[in-house]
Order: sequence, then C-alpha cells, then structure tokens
Amino acid sequence: MAVGQGGKKYLGTVDLGGSKILSVIAEGDGRRLGEDRRTTSAEEGPEVVLERIGVSLETALANAGVQRGDLAAVGICSPGPCDIDAGVISSAPNLPDWRDVPICRYLEERLGVRACLENDANAAAVGEHVYGAGRGCRHLIYITVSTGIGGGLIIDGRLYRGATGVAGEIGHMTVEPDGPVCGCGNRGCLEAFGSGTAIAARGEELVAQGGSPLLVRLAQEQGGLTAAIVGQAAEAGDSASRDIIQRAGYYLGVGLASYVNIFNPEVIIIGGGLAKMGELLLGPARAEMEARAMPEALKAVQLKPAELGDYVGVMGMVALLREATRA
Amino acid sequence: MAVGQGGKKYLGTVDLGGSKILSVIAEGDGRRLGEDRRTTSAEEGPEVVLERIGVSLETALANAGVQRGDLAAVGICSPGPCDIDAGVISSAPNLPDWRDVPICRYLEERLGVRACLENDANAAAVGEHVYGAGRGCRHLIYITVSTGIGGGLIIDGRLYRGATGVAGEIGHMTVEPDGPVCGCGNRGCLEAFGSGTAIAARGEELVAQGGSPLLVRLAQEQGGLTAAIVGQAAEAGDSASRDIIQRAGYYLGVGLASYVNIFNPEVIIIGGGLAKMGELLLGPARAEMEARAMPEALKAVQLKPAELGDYVGVMGMVALLREATRA
Repeated sequence: MAVGQGGKKYLGTVDLGGSKILSVIAEGDGRRLGEDRRTTSAEEGPEVVLERIGVSLETALANAGVQRGDLAAVGICSPGPCDIDAGVISSAPNLPDWRDVPICRYLEERLGVRACLENDANAAAVGEHVYGAGRGCRHLIYITVSTGIGGGLIIDGRLYRGATGVAGEIGHMTVEPDGPVCGCGNRGCLEAFGSGTAIAARGEELVAQGGSPLLVRLAQEQGGLTAAIVGQAAEAGDSASRDIIQRAGYYLGVGLASYVNIFNPEVIIIGGGLAKMGELLLGPARAEMEARAMPEALKAVQLKPAELGDYVGVMGMVALLREATRA
Repeated sequence: MAVGQGGKKYLGTVDLGGSKILSVIAEGDGRRLGEDRRTTSAEEGPEVVLERIGVSLETALANAGVQRGDLAAVGICSPGPCDIDAGVISSAPNLPDWRDVPICRYLEERLGVRACLENDANAAAVGEHVYGAGRGCRHLIYITVSTGIGGGLIIDGRLYRGATGVAGEIGHMTVEPDGPVCGCGNRGCLEAFGSGTAIAARGEELVAQGGSPLLVRLAQEQGGLTAAIVGQAAEAGDSASRDIIQRAGYYLGVGLASYVNIFNPEVIIIGGGLAKMGELLLGPARAEMEARAMPEALKAVQLKPAELGDYVGVMGMVALLREATRA
C-alpha cells in the first residue's frame, strides 16, 4: 500500500521506553522490514537519548535496506503525558529530567520528514485494535499491566483521547478509597494494587517479615525483588507469593468489572509484562470480573491476551501514521 | 424547523417513570407546545399502563392544539434495560411485571406514526447535551442521583451505547470491594453508597439506633423515611443526618474522580432528585473529586447541575427523534 506523496511508502517508528528503545521500519500494510533495539540509558539525559533514538532509527533503516529519502513519516510513542499536537513529551515517569522535550522537531530536522508523537499506552491500544487481538472490533479496552497500569480506549473504532488528550487512565480508578498512596497522588487506585510495583512492594514486605524462604533466596540470587520474581516463587509453589499475585488479580478483576459495566466493550485486551504470568494473575482477575459485572454487559465481552508483544507500540504508530499520512 | 415528511413537524415524547408519566408535544427546535402529567400506578400492570400512556399522549396533543395526523414521530424513554432496535422494554426495576413489553409497536398502532425507545438515563444525557448544561460540548458525562445512580455518556458529540446497548452504568463502578450488596448483585457499587436508597437505609439505621430525635420526628410526620427527609434533617442542623449525606457525597466524589481520569470529559452534569440537595451533597463530592483526580484531567472538567429538571428525559427524546427523522 502506498503511503504519503511521491511514492515514499515506508514508515519509521520508535517505541521509547524507560529501559529500551525499539525502532522498526514498516510498510503501510504493517509488514516489518527491519528493526533496531538498544538500551535507553535514560540516566545520560535527554540530549544523549535523542541522539540515540536518531541513531537507532538510522540503524533500523539500514537493516531494512531502506533509504532515508524513502520514508513517508516517522512516529514515536513515549510513556507519560505528551502534547501530541505540539509533538512535545511533557514528562515521563521513567525518563528523569525529561520535561517538555520537543521530540518531533528533533526527528523532523534529523530525518527531513513529518514526525508524530503518541502516548505509548494509546499507541498500544491502536496496535492491538488494528493488527492484534482487537481486529474488527468497534469498542475495546486495552490494559497494560507492568510497572504501572495504563491503557487506551477504542470507541467506535477510533482512539478516544478525551477533551484534552489525557483520557484512558485505566490504572487510576479508585478501587479502595483508603488504600495505599498511588504514584499519581490519589489513594487506592487500581495501579496501587494490581501493578508490578505493587506486587514487588508486597513481596518486599513478605521478605522483611521472613515470610517466604524461597522468595528470599530468589531475590538474593537475582540481586533484587521484582514482580516477576514473586511470580516465579508462586509458580514454584510458594503459597505466600501466590497469595500476593492472587490479591493483585482480585483487584484487577474488581476494576475489569467496573470497565465492563461502564463501557460495554466487545473485547478487553490485557498486555504488558505481567500478562506473561498468564492464569496465575488472570485467573483470579477473570473470576472476580465475572462475579461482579452486570450479566448483560458481561456476556458481550471477551477477555483476551495481547498478541503483539514487544511490537505493540510500534505497530500502533504504524496504524496512526497510516491514518495521518492519508489525511 | 420542519421534521419528517409532508410537513408533519410535531414530536410526541413520553418519560415513563415508576411513579409518573410525563408526555410532551414539541416542535423540532425543542419548543414545548403542550403536556400531560399523570401517575403511573404501575401496580395495575403493563396493559393498563400502556393504555394510560396512550391517553396521556393524546391529552398532551389536545393541550398543544396539535392534530394526531400532524405528528412526525413519537419517542418514549423508560427506566431499566430496553432493546431499542426492537422497541421493547426488557424489564424495569420500578415497573413490576414489565417483561419484554413491545411499547413501540403499541404506540405505532395507536398513533399511526413511527415510535422510538431509549433508556431514560441515556435520553437525559442527550437532553442535557443538546438543550441543557452540556450545550456545545463534545465529551460529557451525565449522572443522575435519585433512587439509584444512572447516567449516560456523550462521546464525540454522540450518545455512547457500547457493544450491545448497555454502556454507561455509571452507578455500578465498585468503590469499596467489600461494601454493601448493590441492587445489581455486586458489592460496593457507587450506587450502594451514594444513591437515595443508600441514604434512606443509613437514615433507617440511625433511627433504629435512636440516633436522631429530629429524624425520628420528621419520619413520623411524613409517614416514612426518604433521602429527602434525611436531607431536611441535615439542613435543620442535625449532625448525624449531615454525616450521612456527607458520606454519600464523599463516595460520589470518589467515583467522579475516577470518571475524570478515565474520560477526561469537558463537563460532568449532575441531575436527579438528590441533586436538589445542592452543596450539602455536591460540596463533599466536589472536594473529594478535586483531591483525587489527576491534575491534567481535573483542570479540563466542569461540574454542573442539570438544567432541564423534569423535562430532561422528554427533551432527550426530542433530540433523538430529530436525529432519527432526519436520517
């Protein structure tokens, strides 16, 4: 499929994360031709990372065998709030010192093509809608469960951004008004119970209480305690670790039931690193959702794992660039 | 404004409630020409009530000085789930024995014009969007706080119905997973804390404990205890009654904050009987919303009282009929 003017049909996309950068060169139909992966090393500051993003895109171009002059557009997705009209990353929780970084202008000057920016959770929702588990749906919710809980809303086939572009804060629904303080400043958000950070914090408490010798050993061996390690201990039969994951799953299910009642969606797609825990986490979540949601809405919804893995953000940018270059 | 074919420009609308029927004859621009109000007397069963709706519409026509032959269409809104494509009221919480009532067919046969059906909370959202506090907005949430808590979502200027027409169950977001059982079967829904039913139930507890002599007296004088009576006692300075209303307001605010984070709306409109309590209920709700919602989304939203009062449902039907007869 031709995209853009003058036969320039290739799209350059970047998923900028707190720990890694993934650049992909794709055709308009979503076929991936080449890519580059490298660590973000965010501690080196925005200027160094911007340069690194440029080099990553150029390396992906070389790997794809595509000339820079054949790019129709580039698109980048970034964690945290961004001003998509201005092409500016306002701030990013895992990128210290990133404040009002004009990333689109940088990429446009470097590559000589139009650049688009989107929040990474929104991009992921679009990616799964167009190329993944939500193909053919009109109304879907994408939830990413990783360090935090984010997501995006597809309503009537389109990404819903709200009045000022900050809609879809799926992780910041209050599920226990007196719950722990969340990163957003509120108390008892879904994120404060169901995220990787919450699971790791409960694991730390468990270790501090001497509650699980296995978890203590795994944390020592792997040099720290993460949600994935708590999951590993749970899989290995540690019941206290299992309780922690199930409790996170319970709260996810409480949140999912509310989303079913509010949105009456066709599909809820669960992505992010913690989705890899599979039924250990999603089993209790599904059970709680089914126990709580209204029957009329529940029977219309399917809970599905994300399909695009690491590529979810860049594939969303491919879809958004297709739309933008067509307009 | 001309609506429909052959110069038939009048619209007949009905708001069917558990306690009253309101019929209004309007012009396409929303001007109301005549109306009829009568009690539903739902206990007499669906057949008698259908006849009563027909008589009410005919009385409103006579009061408006409009001939039945000059009606372009009629529209009715009803509480509870309905199949709007089939024109059938599936069930209605306050209308006992109403199961799969083909109300549109009845009205079409009686009046000889096309009939449309909508859920009353959805109709109210459309009414406030087109003629009330949400004029000119693209994204708004309408919340009605009365016996229960319902509402409707306007997204990108249109009523959002979801995958199977049951979206917008604003009152059935879980705000306390171990809270009291809600009418929907779930535990700890917003409705179970913030509705008139919840306030009245807490008032009953207070009276049973002998906690408020004023509330006991008001309940005796007025032959029962309602949320409005608890509000009256609170206004008269009864601190225990005030606590009950403030607690309901607190939970409303918890819910509002989540809706602000999820939808990033321009306006949230509060309607329904309990909105008449004003700042007594809405003060604590606003304070809690402001304490909890994310700043970027909070600064974009206005909390407004509904403007259309009793007419909110019928005005929504006028707007929906305009759209339907134009198509």
